Amino acid sequence: MGLEAFLSSGNKRLDQQLIFTAEIDKMTKVLRRTVLVDGSRRENDAEHSWHIAVMAMLFSEYAKEAVDIGRVVQMCVVHDLIEIYAGDTFAYDVAGNKDKAKREAAAADKLYALLPKEQGEHLHALWEEFDAEETADAKYAACMDRLQPFVHNTLTEGHTWVEGNTDRAAVEKRMAVIKDFMPQVYEWLSANLDRGVENGWVRP
Amino acid sequence: MGLEAFLSSGNKRLDQQLIFTAEIDKMTKVLRRTVLVDGSRRENDAEHSWHIAVMAMLFSEYAKEAVDIGRVVQMCVVHDLIEIYAGDTFAYDVAGNKDKAKREAAAADKLYALLPKEQGEHLHALWEEFDAEETADAKYAACMDRLQPFVHNTLTEGHTWVEGNTDRAAVEKRMAVIKDFMPQVYEWLSANLDRGVENGWVRP
Repeated sequence: MGLEAFLSSGNKRLDQQLIFTAEIDKMTKVLRRTVLVDGSRRENDAEHSWHIAVMAMLFSEYAKEAVDIGRVVQMCVVHDLIEIYAGDTFAYDVAGNKDKAKREAAAADKLYALLPKEQGEHLHALWEEFDAEETADAKYAACMDRLQPFVHNTLTEGHTWVEGNTDRAAVEKRMAVIKDFMPQVYEWLSANLDRGVENGWVRP
Repeated sequence: MGLEAFLSSGNKRLDQQLIFTAEIDKMTKVLRRTVLVDGSRRENDAEHSWHIAVMAMLFSEYAKEAVDIGRVVQMCVVHDLIEIYAGDTFAYDVAGNKDKAKREAAAADKLYALLPKEQGEHLHALWEEFDAEETADAKYAACMDRLQPFVHNTLTEGHTWVEGNTDRAAVEKRMAVIKDFMPQVYEWLSANLDRGVENGWVRP
């Protein structure tokens, strides 16, 4: 990948934006633990990011604070870009999560430096807002980021829960932002988690 | 796929939204003609939709009218959903494009009926706006939808151009919305198209 395959535009900003466009295609190579709904293969970060962006257009009525859907959808499509360099850290991987913040911060610096300065800073800030889970928009985006794999696990006999030998407390901890920010969705989720335990997909 | 795999939420709206969420995962099964930047395989509609959504956050400075990026990003992530039922119609397939509008309208009716009425209508309207290419937001989204495969073709020795035995006039026609709405980007594109012809990827 690189400018050598393109003719230059003669405009440094546009060249940077085109290079970034080509570079982020690598999101299709970052595999998550979650499998597609039909169980055929693991999904990748591009697919996951797209999926939660559409979801963000559907579920805002259950959020306990008003959210700006247009902003959240933007947050969703960029929230995992840093994994191009940092890799996907499995949510239930305790060791991998210890140095996650440091790896991801370095990845963000590298990735966003490809863009014109103020544009890179804007995307970087949006990712940091997502990651901090403090604003309503970020909480809502985080809910979508947790709900989507939950839906997939429910439809694939608990695929990643089984693979990770996961217990109920770990799933509940992961879903805490939904419990807090979208209680009605959490009710549904909790009943399905009960059933996951009954089915032996999640340890009690 | 279906409610049988979920416990019902006891809320018809939420059930519909969750079913829709599961159903649209089929976007990962709709293969496009375009290959990934590394040439390894064809990209799917989920990946493509995600890619143009991020691009919409990068290139608005070249649009000749002001656009609402938050709206455009939403348009990008839903613009191909109807292909779950209608399939992807190759841009340079003359026969396939003859009944495209009819197939896609039927697909939209089927797909959006899965959602609560006003929500389905909202997404349906956004897709129709995209498809009509009349508003500034729709024109800008269409530009991203054309620019992304152009970037991929440029980086993969004209993969779909070669496969489709495409001539320069057909590519220019496909890129007309960029010429009109983003002239500076079209300049870059046109120079790279010249090179595509020189390289034998596009017929003169």
